[in-house]
Amino acid sequence: MDRRSFLKTSALGGASAAAAGLAAPAVAQGAPRTLTMVCSWPRGLAGVWDAVERFVDNVQTMSGGSLAIDARAAGELVGGLEVFDAVTAGQADMYHAADYYFTGQHPAWAYYTTAPFGMTAPEMMSWYYGMGGKDLHQQLGDVFGLHTSIAGQTGAQGGGWFRKEIKSVADFQGLKFRMPGLGGEVVGKLGASVQVMAAGEIYQALSSGALDGTEWVGPWSDEKLGLQEVCQFFYPAGFHEPGSALSVNTNLEVFDSLSPAEQRILDVAAAECHQFDYALFIANNGPALGRLISGGTQIKEFSDDVWDAYGAASKEVLDQYMDDEIFAETRAAYESAMGEISGWTGRSDSVYTAQRNRVLATL
Amino acid sequence: MDRRSFLKTSALGGASAAAAGLAAPAVAQGAPRTLTMVCSWPRGLAGVWDAVERFVDNVQTMSGGSLAIDARAAGELVGGLEVFDAVTAGQADMYHAADYYFTGQHPAWAYYTTAPFGMTAPEMMSWYYGMGGKDLHQQLGDVFGLHTSIAGQTGAQGGGWFRKEIKSVADFQGLKFRMPGLGGEVVGKLGASVQVMAAGEIYQALSSGALDGTEWVGPWSDEKLGLQEVCQFFYPAGFHEPGSALSVNTNLEVFDSLSPAEQRILDVAAAECHQFDYALFIANNGPALGRLISGGTQIKEFSDDVWDAYGAASKEVLDQYMDDEIFAETRAAYESAMGEISGWTGRSDSVYTAQRNRVLATL
Repeated sequence: MDRRSFLKTSALGGASAAAAGLAAPAVAQGAPRTLTMVCSWPRGLAGVWDAVERFVDNVQTMSGGSLAIDARAAGELVGGLEVFDAVTAGQADMYHAADYYFTGQHPAWAYYTTAPFGMTAPEMMSWYYGMGGKDLHQQLGDVFGLHTSIAGQTGAQGGGWFRKEIKSVADFQGLKFRMPGLGGEVVGKLGASVQVMAAGEIYQALSSGALDGTEWVGPWSDEKLGLQEVCQFFYPAGFHEPGSALSVNTNLEVFDSLSPAEQRILDVAAAECHQFDYALFIANNGPALGRLISGGTQIKEFSDDVWDAYGAASKEVLDQYMDDEIFAETRAAYESAMGEISGWTGRSDSVYTAQRNRVLATL
Repeated sequence: MDRRSFLKTSALGGASAAAAGLAAPAVAQGAPRTLTMVCSWPRGLAGVWDAVERFVDNVQTMSGGSLAIDARAAGELVGGLEVFDAVTAGQADMYHAADYYFTGQHPAWAYYTTAPFGMTAPEMMSWYYGMGGKDLHQQLGDVFGLHTSIAGQTGAQGGGWFRKEIKSVADFQGLKFRMPGLGGEVVGKLGASVQVMAAGEIYQALSSGALDGTEWVGPWSDEKLGLQEVCQFFYPAGFHEPGSALSVNTNLEVFDSLSPAEQRILDVAAAECHQFDYALFIANNGPALGRLISGGTQIKEFSDDVWDAYGAASKEVLDQYMDDEIFAETRAAYESAMGEISGWTGRSDSVYTAQRNRVLATL
C-alpha cells in the first residue's frame, strides 16, 4: 500500500491548519459522548474501511449508545498521514491507520504494522496478545500520549506484479518498480529504480511502460486496480509485508477519561476487529487468486537467490535504525518471539499443512 | 484431549439429577443478572480455564456489571459432558466446552471444534468469521435451541508421544495407543489397539507398558503431564486435531432475553477469546517444545506412507456420517473453504515462511 495516495485525497494542507477546525474532545466521565476517529483511508477501501465500520458498530452497540464514534475518512478532517499528529495533539480523539506510516515520528512504529522478513498474521497475533507485543506497543504509545491497540489485519501482502518474469537478482537492475517504505529501500539495494506513486496512477504507468512492476496489497485489492490487465506475472509470496496490522490509537487523556467499561469495550472491539479483518482478507484473497489464474495471470515464486538477496538487504535496512534504543529493544523482542513461535508452528502447523495438502490431492 | 477425564471429576451422576439443583435462569430484560456457565473443564486447566476467565472478565467489565457470569467447573454443578444437555434443557444458561464432545447429539458439532485433516487455527478463524462458518454453526445451534459462538482455540494438537519410533504404517499393528474420538477411530483402522483413559492414568500406563503411546494436547500441556519422562519420541505434527476451537453456547431463550448491547458483548467477547486463547497456546508451546528438546525428547515426523494411511482412514471415518444432511452440507462447506483459503495462503504465507526461515538461518 502507498501512504502517499492518501495524502493526495486530503482537502487540507498541513496538520495544524487541518486540525484547527476540530473541537477539543469532551472529557466528562460517564455521560454519552461521541469520539472523533480520523482515518488514513478513503471511505470504502476494501477490507480496510470494513475494519473501521466493524469497530465502530461494535463499540456503539456494546456500549448501549453511551459511546459513539464519528469515523472520518482521509481528507475529511485531516489528511491520511496527518492523523497521528491530530490525535497526539488532542485535536481528534483516535485514529485508524497503519502505524508504519509514522516511522518518521519513531522507527519502532513499524513493528506494530509489519516488517521485512517479519511475522505472518497468525504469528503477529501470537506475539501481540500472548508474548508481550501489546505491552511494548503501549510503551511506545506512552511516549506519544497514545493508548494503543491493533485493530485490523490484511494478512500477507503479495510479492508483486511484474511485466517480465524475475528469474534472478540481476533482473532487478534498473527495474522501474513501485514499492513504498522499507520494502522499497530493500529493492533499491538490489538495483531497482524505486518509484512511488498513488493508486490511481499505477495502472496507466504500467500500461505506458513508465513502470515495470508494482506491489499493492493482495489478490482481492489488486484485482480491483486491474493489475492483471497490465502485468502478466504475479508473485503471491513477498518479503516486505508478511502480515500487516492496522491500529486504533486513542489520545491517552481521552482514553483515561472513559469509564472502565468503555475502556474495555474499545480494547476488546479492537482485538475482535484484528481477527475479523484477517478473516475477511483471507476469505477474499483465495477466490480472487482463483479468478486471476483463470484469467491467465502467471503465478510465480522468486528463486532462492532472490530471497537470499531480499534477506541480506532487509537486514541492512533494519540495521540502520539500531542506534535507537526503543527500536533495538522492540526488534529484539519481536525477532525472539518469532523464533519461539516458529519453533512450534514450523514443526506442527507447517508440516501438517504440507502433508494434508499433499494427501488430499491424492484421495 | 479426553472428554472422559472430565466425567470422572463429576461429583454427580446423571444430567437430570445434576441439573435439578440449578435454578431456572431469570429472563427479565435490562436488570442486572448473573448467567450460570457450566464448563467441561476442571478449574485451572492450562489454556482452557484461562479462556473461561478471559471471557467472564471481559463480559463483566464491558457490561459495567449489568451482566455477571458464574463459571462452574466440571463436576461443580454437572459433569463435564453433561453441559450440553443442561443448557439445552434450560437448567444452566450457557456452556464452555469443545463442541465435538457432542457428536452423539449431532455429528456436525465436530466441525466447530476440529476434524481429521481439517483446518488449522488460522484457517478456522478465516472460515468461521469470514466465509460463513459462524452462520452454519448457528444453523446447527437453532436445531438445539442454542446461540453459538467459538470462544477458545488450542491451535494444532501434537501428533503424539511414542515409546518406540514409528517408521511405517506397520508399526501401528497392535500398538496400544490412547487417542479418543474420530482420531482414535482412524488409528484403529491402521491396526492400533485404541485405548481410552483419563489424564491421571496416562503416565502410569505408559510407565508400566500398558500403553505404547498417547496423544494429549501439545508441548505446554503435555509437559505438565510429564509425558517426556515416559516416552522418548514426540511427533509435533498430527492429523487428528489441527486447530481445536472451544465454544461458548448459550440457551437461545436466555440469549434472546438479553439487551442488544449484552448480546453483542457476549459475541464480541467470545470472538476476542478465540484469538486470545490461540495466542496463549502458541506463546507457551514454543518455549515448552524447546525445553522438551533440551531435555532429550526426540522430535520426529511421520513418514509419507503414515500420512497417506492417516488420510485414507480419516476419509473413511468421515464418510460414515454422510447420510446425515446437515453433516454433509457442513463438511462440503468446510472443505470447500479450506481449499479456497489454502489456494492463497499455500502460495503466500507458506512459501514466505519457508523462505524466511531458510534465509534467516544463513544471515
